[in-house]
This record gives sequence, C-alpha cells and structure tokens, in this order.
Amino acid sequence: MTARADLIADAALALLAERGMRGLTHRAVDEAAGLPQGSTSNYARTRQALLEAAVRRLADREAQVLSLEGMPAPGEGIDGLLDALSQTLHRYLTGHRELLVARYELGLEATRRPELRTFYDETGRRFREPLTALMRAAGSVRPERHTLSLVAWCEGMLFSVAVGTFHTAVPTVAELRAGFGELLGGMLGDRPAAPITRAEQ
Amino acid sequence: MTARADLIADAALALLAERGMRGLTHRAVDEAAGLPQGSTSNYARTRQALLEAAVRRLADREAQVLSLEGMPAPGEGIDGLLDALSQTLHRYLTGHRELLVARYELGLEATRRPELRTFYDETGRRFREPLTALMRAAGSVRPERHTLSLVAWCEGMLFSVAVGTFHTAVPTVAELRAGFGELLGGMLGDRPAAPITRAEQ
Repeated sequence: MTARADLIADAALALLAERGMRGLTHRAVDEAAGLPQGSTSNYARTRQALLEAAVRRLADREAQVLSLEGMPAPGEGIDGLLDALSQTLHRYLTGHRELLVARYELGLEATRRPELRTFYDETGRRFREPLTALMRAAGSVRPERHTLSLVAWCEGMLFSVAVGTFHTAVPTVAELRAGFGELLGGMLGDRPAAPITRAEQ
Repeated sequence: MTARADLIADAALALLAERGMRGLTHRAVDEAAGLPQGSTSNYARTRQALLEAAVRRLADREAQVLSLEGMPAPGEGIDGLLDALSQTLHRYLTGHRELLVARYELGLEATRRPELRTFYDETGRRFREPLTALMRAAGSVRPERHTLSLVAWCEGMLFSVAVGTFHTAVPTVAELRAGFGELLGGMLGDRPAAPITRAEQ
C-alpha cells in the first residue's frame, strides 16, 4: 500500500462515517483527501473497487484498535481475557467511533454486494478464530456457539452505544468487564474472579 | 395512519433494505408502491419527513414482531423470559430480515440527523423499560446495566447473523435459548433451569 492509497481509503472511511453511503463518491474522496480531481478514480476505477479499498483499510485499522496481539495466550486464564476484552471495547467506543460507523455502513452494503461480502467475512474470521481457541482453552465445551455469543455481545455493545438506542452512555471499563464476566461465567459454569466495585453499579 | 401512508412507508422500508440509503428517493418509493408519481412527495414533502415516516412504521412493525404483549409478566420467572426472548429473536431472524436491515440503515442515518435520533430513541425506550422491570423482578441487583447487557446481546445476535460476519448461520431456538440462559445465569448468579439438548451443541 502506498501512502496515497491509504490517504484515499482513510478519506473514504471518514466520508462513510460522516455522510453515509450516499456521501461516498470519487469526487468527494478527492476533496476530503486534498488530492487533485481524478486521483481517486485513478486509484480505484469503479465504486466496487473504492468500497473494497475502504474495507481493506478498515480491516487494517481495526486490527490496530483490537490489537489481538495484546490478547492473552490460550491458557492464561479468564482474568487476562476479561481485562483485554473490556479495555479493547472501551478503547474502540471512546476513540474510534467513526471507524465503527464506517464498518456498519460497509457491512450493510455487503448485504447487497457479494464481492464485498467476501472481503468483509475474511476480516471477521481473523478475529473469530483466535477467540474460539481462547474459549476452548478456557474450558468451553461449545466453543463455536460460545464464540458467536461472545462476538454478538461485543458487536451489540458497540452498536448499541455507538449507533443504537444506548448511544449516549459509554459504559466504563469496569462495567464492560462486569458484563463480560457474567457472560463468561454463565458459559463456563464458573464465576470468574472479577472483583465487583461501586463503579459497576 | 391511512392505508396509503402505510403503503408508502412500507415501500420506503423495503427500498432501504434492498438498496440502502442511496436507493431511497421519493420517486423510487412511488414506483415501488405502485403509486402515481408525486404521491410520496404529497405525503412526505422532505427527505426528513420520509425518513420519519419510515421510522414510525418500523416501530409499529417491529412491535408486532417483538410482540412485547407476549412477554411474561414480571414475577413469572426466568423460564418464561427465556422462551419468549429466544422465540422472538428467532422469528425476527428467520422471517423479518428485511426489517432488520432497514432498521440498521435508519439507525446509522440517525447518527447524522438529530431529529431522526429522537424518533429512533423513543422506539428503543418502549422495549428497554419493560425489560428492566422484568430483570428487576427476576432478582437483578443492577437492572439498568443488565438491561444494557441483554439488549446488546440481542442486538449483536441480530446484527451478526443478519448483517455481520455470522450472516450465513441462523441459530436455532434452542441455541438462542442456551445463550440467553448463560447470560442470565451469569447475571443472576443462578443457573436457570434450561435443559441442554443435543440441538444446542
């Protein structure tokens, strides 16, 4: 990826967040990126190509936010997983809301564009598979179903706070950790050692 | 609401699901509804008015799918709540996916239109408040946080299956019930009496 390619894809993501799918045009990307007219068309000729560039860039930027490298290794236990997940969600919600909105725009568009679907799904697998391994290591007897449940909870928390009916209140790290702890506790049949503090009320 | 108003709002919702926010125009609604050109403009002059009509209609149709009337009364215990929630989610995912996609389109648009936000949030409250009462009656000591957690799980399950990375696999009622049971069990510190069957594997 050249710096110009990243600049174009970042401008596309910012436009998606700010103006939605209707606001994403090649010309608007040129303007938002501060590039001469025609630059975006040279880089991504069709709308499909522009959307694919946005999805690829989203995956890279999301990987940095989620920083799976920072996840505990399988076998390091529940507490590490709880800390990592709650801090990651909180970081995403407080510092990268724009990226979330762009992601949902692209996800909805992928329901109408099978070619985009492929890119979008590949990104999903990157995060799902390590999580399934972690759940298995934590003692889950139904790691696939539990992964779906855990991903759904995360996805729903992000969506509800960033877009949906809870959008005004970002939960604290302690609140997110408590919610995760309950879900994992219910899954694993074992209450994780998550100290309850007044901040979770 | 006249029949024509409902026809227009339903056509708007169908267009949103099928073509996204870019595909929603007054003229496209006329065509999709089989009405003479100009009918939609007569009913909803501005784009904002058309979007508000779509949100109002969505709330009515969603209320039918979610059928809160069918929810157990506070005090009827966990099993009734588990049955009602899992069947409701499954009904939504299998029979009304179009409504879900339209809802997410409108939710994203509401992040850019404060006037739409108000309508959208009001709808959310309709479902959240009875759920908080149910959670309190079920013995939750943190009913607000638990409601957020439960709504997030539902929202994320709907989104992940209908739009996101899990879109191909609709969980069975038994799988949804098992996931709910784990979440509620973790919240209430008590495993609900949810029989585990092979279908949940």
